[in-house]
Amino acid sequence: MSPVTNGINGHDFTVESLADKILSRVESNDPFFSLEFFPPRTEQGAANLIGRFDRMRAGGPLFVDITWHPAGDPGSDKITSSTKIAGTVLNYCGLDTMLHMTCVKQTKETIKKNLEKTKNLGIRNILALRGGISPNADADESWGYQEGGFNYGVDLVRFIKQEYGDAFSICVAGYPNGHPDSTSYQDDLLHLKEKIDAGGQFIITQLFFTAEEFLTFVKDCREIGIDCPIIPGIFPIQTNRSLVQLTKLSKLSIPEEIQKVIEPIKDNDAAIRKYGIDLATDMCRTLLNSGKVHGLHMYTLNLETATIQILKNLGLWCQDVAKPLPWKTSANPERRENETVRPIFWCDRPKSYIHRTQGWDEFPNGRWGDSASPAFGELKDYHLFFLRSRTAKDKLRSLWGKELTSEADVWKVFKHFITGAVNENGVKVTETPWNDDGLSPETNVLSSTLSRYNELGVLTINSQPNVNAVPSTHPIYGWGDKGGYISQKAYLEFFINKHYAEALKTVLPKYHPRVNYHMINKCGTTDHTNADRSNPNAVTWGIFAGKEIIQPTVVDPVSFIVWKDEAFGLWHERWASLYEKGSKSREIINDIADNYYLVNLVDNDYPADSILWEVLDEMLAASQKVDMGKKSNGVCGENGTQKIEELQIH
Amino acid sequence: MSPVTNGINGHDFTVESLADKILSRVESNDPFFSLEFFPPRTEQGAANLIGRFDRMRAGGPLFVDITWHPAGDPGSDKITSSTKIAGTVLNYCGLDTMLHMTCVKQTKETIKKNLEKTKNLGIRNILALRGGISPNADADESWGYQEGGFNYGVDLVRFIKQEYGDAFSICVAGYPNGHPDSTSYQDDLLHLKEKIDAGGQFIITQLFFTAEEFLTFVKDCREIGIDCPIIPGIFPIQTNRSLVQLTKLSKLSIPEEIQKVIEPIKDNDAAIRKYGIDLATDMCRTLLNSGKVHGLHMYTLNLETATIQILKNLGLWCQDVAKPLPWKTSANPERRENETVRPIFWCDRPKSYIHRTQGWDEFPNGRWGDSASPAFGELKDYHLFFLRSRTAKDKLRSLWGKELTSEADVWKVFKHFITGAVNENGVKVTETPWNDDGLSPETNVLSSTLSRYNELGVLTINSQPNVNAVPSTHPIYGWGDKGGYISQKAYLEFFINKHYAEALKTVLPKYHPRVNYHMINKCGTTDHTNADRSNPNAVTWGIFAGKEIIQPTVVDPVSFIVWKDEAFGLWHERWASLYEKGSKSREIINDIADNYYLVNLVDNDYPADSILWEVLDEMLAASQKVDMGKKSNGVCGENGTQKIEELQIH
Repeated sequence: MSPVTNGINGHDFTVESLADKILSRVESNDPFFSLEFFPPRTEQGAANLIGRFDRMRAGGPLFVDITWHPAGDPGSDKITSSTKIAGTVLNYCGLDTMLHMTCVKQTKETIKKNLEKTKNLGIRNILALRGGISPNADADESWGYQEGGFNYGVDLVRFIKQEYGDAFSICVAGYPNGHPDSTSYQDDLLHLKEKIDAGGQFIITQLFFTAEEFLTFVKDCREIGIDCPIIPGIFPIQTNRSLVQLTKLSKLSIPEEIQKVIEPIKDNDAAIRKYGIDLATDMCRTLLNSGKVHGLHMYTLNLETATIQILKNLGLWCQDVAKPLPWKTSANPERRENETVRPIFWCDRPKSYIHRTQGWDEFPNGRWGDSASPAFGELKDYHLFFLRSRTAKDKLRSLWGKELTSEADVWKVFKHFITGAVNENGVKVTETPWNDDGLSPETNVLSSTLSRYNELGVLTINSQPNVNAVPSTHPIYGWGDKGGYISQKAYLEFFINKHYAEALKTVLPKYHPRVNYHMINKCGTTDHTNADRSNPNAVTWGIFAGKEIIQPTVVDPVSFIVWKDEAFGLWHERWASLYEKGSKSREIINDIADNYYLVNLVDNDYPADSILWEVLDEMLAASQKVDMGKKSNGVCGENGTQKIEELQIH
Repeated sequence: MSPVTNGINGHDFTVESLADKILSRVESNDPFFSLEFFPPRTEQGAANLIGRFDRMRAGGPLFVDITWHPAGDPGSDKITSSTKIAGTVLNYCGLDTMLHMTCVKQTKETIKKNLEKTKNLGIRNILALRGGISPNADADESWGYQEGGFNYGVDLVRFIKQEYGDAFSICVAGYPNGHPDSTSYQDDLLHLKEKIDAGGQFIITQLFFTAEEFLTFVKDCREIGIDCPIIPGIFPIQTNRSLVQLTKLSKLSIPEEIQKVIEPIKDNDAAIRKYGIDLATDMCRTLLNSGKVHGLHMYTLNLETATIQILKNLGLWCQDVAKPLPWKTSANPERRENETVRPIFWCDRPKSYIHRTQGWDEFPNGRWGDSASPAFGELKDYHLFFLRSRTAKDKLRSLWGKELTSEADVWKVFKHFITGAVNENGVKVTETPWNDDGLSPETNVLSSTLSRYNELGVLTINSQPNVNAVPSTHPIYGWGDKGGYISQKAYLEFFINKHYAEALKTVLPKYHPRVNYHMINKCGTTDHTNADRSNPNAVTWGIFAGKEIIQPTVVDPVSFIVWKDEAFGLWHERWASLYEKGSKSREIINDIADNYYLVNLVDNDYPADSILWEVLDEMLAASQKVDMGKKSNGVCGENGTQKIEELQIH
């Protein structure tokens, strides 16, 4: 027997369900919001939507809600399917996710298959709907009544409960103005009660236009014994077209006072949006002040401006979302509860990391441990929609050089990225192939120093300064609970040419064991390190009240070999591919990938000033002396095979 | 697949064998020493020997060697058996251990059983001997030749290799002056060669009197192809009696020049010992300077003075043995390689901790984790020989009070222990029931502050100051590899009476969540904490070059409940039992155990000055105000059941 048999690497963990989270926010009177999106129609639309999720994550939504789009093959693996988008939000964008699901006209087998897939993706929240509401539905048979089949939302609720017990939080729809197809408002309330009795745990309402309508609806629900949270669905008027479309769909009529305001400005989108924002803000304020409302469900229509403005007006948009860990966490329950350590290499490409580790059946918790054979999935497709740059190729060429004439042109791109300065095309270099989301705040701290080295061809792609016991609320280094302390070892990762690499090799022994290094070329024929290859080096850790040490970031020599392929591959896949085959520009980028070395350095002496700049200075000085003429080095071709480059004898 | 399936909680670990350790010390020219002891005859002798092992551990022996004492039932579970003593040295005293084993006159089954038991205890080193050498052995049959049986050391070597492969490091004996029973020196060398060829990995020699004898022996061994390390057995002459006895046993004659010196002083033990120390020092110096000798095996005869003096003369006695972890590690290979975390409570009773966790099949590594049901063995026998105080009861009474008249007398004992001052009986209080080895250096740092509180009845039994990133070589807080940094949270553990406990309860909420507390009475009817009971709090951690964070000490709420029984039990078992039944003194101690509370406090804000003193000051101030008269409290009787004490109404 041992005290560690439970919990550490086991799968015993309890995840707070969305239904419980909502209850606890209601109880603690801590207002929240959620965001509804519909699946995109195109692959580029999907890529753009991912960017929107990432941006809207910053405001702290309690969850994101994805509608079921029957025409879009919603249960399929298509990039644009409802299920695929919901799974991506959850796993890659780190937001708790609810998926709509309809049941009418569907077989038990199809529904079961869809639920199974949903569950396997980690989604634990379903908005159970009847479906079949369509402006053209005018006869009973068109919504497909099946004897003994799925005819109402309640049938789906019952099926989910019966098949999955408490595995899913179940949400159901409420209609403050009655269901478009229902016989009466009272009937509709009774149907809602039935759905709650069958297992529905909270209600999101269809759109409405006045606070009074919603509050009356809540009162009526409470009177017939519906006790669960009821979240108002907020529809900010954004354009006249969408307003007309939606009211037609939901068979609602637009109140006169609204029609009066809109009519004169109906072709002025900006004016309508402003009106919509003000109207929704006022209504939401009334709702929140009523004491009956603790959360708002925003129908975003896949747009962000109006929704964010309303939430900011209400003070619900978080300025400072708590970061549980220094890297971007996934919201998949298995990962969220168990994963506490990652290699530093992917910190600016968290989606790639999640993608490459999605097959793991357990995640490093507490310590990275012995990673002698971490089974990273291969990254063959650098252009997966959730990894894709949302920037067009033309724009990327204006960032990274329309035409490259020398390696020095490339060095300048790195320098511009680090400094944020405008380049020769008059644009700011806001991204590189190695950064999903621009310059990290930590790199920013080092930018003036880094720019000096990048200018000289030390092409930095990842770095963090050393810190000793700064508060966990620190704006740059902070993460985790309040009242803790964060420490870090200085870290630097960069590409350098062979000439610098030879110089660096002569310099490094002087800094052993204070500085751990790892230096490798594309095909791995050169692979130097002074680290124990089976021992990861923790470079970020946090000390919290009443907890064990949390050490979320490690430099792991084994994973570095895996990352190396990806980091070198990005030169080819993301940068060289912007230029025509056979072009000089393309050749320059490919040559860099084939001939440069990827290096990482850790200064273990974290309470002292970082010594890594001194290492680089000595490397630069030594590079003046290294006679490259005396040796020939192994070089990797674009296809990864090794060729011998004959170097000219000086 | 996951990167953590190997190594973390698995049993995949490789332990460097003693034979390899010796080889690497030889190769790196880093001289070492080992210590030979024979098993004691009595239980008190065993307890005393444990103290000797603990003291001699401080000098850094490579291993301890326990002889096989055929008359003492050497393979049995008797406290005084060779096997039991060797297992205790290894597991409880933290020293790598070799056990002698003889084979003559024994069945294969007995030998197998002994080896199996040895292996299960964690012992991995055997000195394989023929045995049967006795001054009375004068006929072939007396040493028990058995056709096809075990007749020579080589038979045992072969058997161990055949049955256990490389599980044991095998040592064999060499005879610089020939085996007492051998036909010739040359024959003897060939027998030795045979033992090495069969699997012997290093040689320890029988005693000899001059460096030349040994060096000739080594030369002769090398000439016939014996290449393994040969360690000289050093016999410091300590008394004339032991010299005569041993030379008779080994059929050696004492060289004339030694006899000449000893004869005139043979009844003057001190003079003989001094001569023996000088003689051995000189001889060892010659051996070490020869370049042929890299280690010394000391025949201690279970005495420490002469051996330590010789080793100090030679500069082999370490002044500063490396501490791999802040607590006293076990040398059992399973624990040594895998165990990296312990609760702080047992830090001054490490043997009790090892005893109570000996049944665990894996040990917390990296983090303590979820210890919802740590299966600690019960501590029923507080007087196990390796846990026993080596101090006689009379002496203990002079330390802890010959006759107690009030609780304040007890408080004084704590104060005297903390300050190191002489008490009313003219002795220093060098131990308490809660400390195996006197005051720890860390407590010493706090002694002047602690003494003030102990005097007032805050009876501290464990404490550590907070530190932020002190070097790992720090004389007080240091442990682990050089070049690392150690941090700690301030910790304090103490007994207080109910009056103080009530006051403390009113004070603590002000310090939440900065200060974690746990307060409990003997029977557990009062059990207050503000800590999450499933979350251990790491209070000591180290940051090292190229490694994950090491956090060897935690305050674990679940283990505290287990420790509580032991801590309260020690009042009764160790202290009250010193006095006669029915005596006032005994009653006072039992009353304290039944009525006091055990409290631990952690200040989580480790970079700031400790706030725990402020908490105590506020408790003392509040205790002036608390009106104890208004309530009656649950109190535990000596047998652990609850009784209600009626408190006098003021």
